[in-house]
Amino acid sequence: MPASSKKLSIISFSGDFDKAIAVFTLATGAAAVGREVKIFFTFWGLNIVRKNKWRSFTGKGVLDRVFNFLMGGLACLPLSRFNFLGLSPRLMTYMMKKNNVATLPELIESANALGVQLFACEMAMVILGIKKEDLVPEIRSVTGVAGFLEEAKDGEILFI
Amino acid sequence: MPASSKKLSIISFSGDFDKAIAVFTLATGAAAVGREVKIFFTFWGLNIVRKNKWRSFTGKGVLDRVFNFLMGGLACLPLSRFNFLGLSPRLMTYMMKKNNVATLPELIESANALGVQLFACEMAMVILGIKKEDLVPEIRSVTGVAGFLEEAKDGEILFI
Amino acid sequence: MPASSKKLSIISFSGDFDKAIAVFTLATGAAAVGREVKIFFTFWGLNIVRKNKWRSFTGKGVLDRVFNFLMGGLACLPLSRFNFLGLSPRLMTYMMKKNNVATLPELIESANALGVQLFACEMAMVILGIKKEDLVPEIRSVTGVAGFLEEAKDGEILFI
Repeated sequence: MPASSKKLSIISFSGDFDKAIAVFTLATGAAAVGREVKIFFTFWGLNIVRKNKWRSFTGKGVLDRVFNFLMGGLACLPLSRFNFLGLSPRLMTYMMKKNNVATLPELIESANALGVQLFACEMAMVILGIKKEDLVPEIRSVTGVAGFLEEAKDGEILFI
Repeated sequence: MPASSKKLSIISFSGDFDKAIAVFTLATGAAAVGREVKIFFTFWGLNIVRKNKWRSFTGKGVLDRVFNFLMGGLACLPLSRFNFLGLSPRLMTYMMKKNNVATLPELIESANALGVQLFACEMAMVILGIKKEDLVPEIRSVTGVAGFLEEAKDGEILFI
Repeated sequence: MPASSKKLSIISFSGDFDKAIAVFTLATGAAAVGREVKIFFTFWGLNIVRKNKWRSFTGKGVLDRVFNFLMGGLACLPLSRFNFLGLSPRLMTYMMKKNNVATLPELIESANALGVQLFACEMAMVILGIKKEDLVPEIRSVTGVAGFLEEAKDGEILFI
């Protein structure tokens, strides 16, 4: 079997902006050379694929609201190393544009166009009070750990 | 060979509460579908499997004491994204209970019952001044990098 | 094929001191037992292999300078869990020396001597304004994601 047909699966756990960039750069890079690529969004990684791009108080219970506020959305992803008043993600986006490197929403779109399959973690959604309709439509399905391992079998798995 | 018999090895490097949950959720999920699962606790990950659950000053030298204090124990794991005065791990445990998702000690117990093998990193124990008797009895053995790679061979490895 | 001949590839994404130690400990441990090992430095991980070991303002534009200052160099790697005024990396180096465990520069040297191959990520270098001549001579080549996946094929990949 040629290497290009091998599977690459990524567990996207972190909601940090730079790690989200890493997830999609690896995913699209691998898909571009013919790999079958699957991304499993869990915990803070679910933030990357939430529709609502701004911090909001949409949870049902008080604790859900606290979590939603703290987690924020796509536009509020912190940068893992330093994140001064939200400056850095914008700074990096600016530098990426300046250097003609794709930005996150463009990478999500490209990933979808290249056939990268996106999954959301069922357990994390239950814990954090997130529903399927809160996620971007590119999410193929909601699945558990066993389901994901079945999807990922016979390939490499990265935890980011 | 069926996929279910494949090995999954996890290097548990982070002492963050949410990542510890991820380690055990993946481990027990994989073991539940028949995978052979091994977890290698190293650096801050050793915190997850220390007996002493409270911050203490048990080291021999002053530096060991500083490290022990800073590292704390199982009951003091920080949450990687936000950890306001210790609020968040308790908040997550509360939400996990509310939603009938297993908590960390339950996951350690389940992992053991499902045959997940736990190892501790020899070098990190030397660096951080931790002894075998400081760790929970579920730790099968203390091993080095070469020993772990031998245990993990022919399977997937995740670094969490 | 014996397990010892299998490939191990590491994506070194984090610039944290403890994770850098983990990267090189795994790499040299694996190389020592006969594995073919490749490390791909990207984003903050590029810090680990920069020549300039002190914080400096060497970038061309103002934003490059801000990034360079914030990223610092090899001597300024933060410790991921706690990093009080730069105390901890020095503290860990001290403890490592006290316990006869190799320090980071020694690990880089050992990795090179053991045949570990070092690569730098082209895209991250463009984003962060880093040039090939800014990196240590042990960097074998600058490559993209597709090139790295080709190098890493038929082996395990860790994201650290």
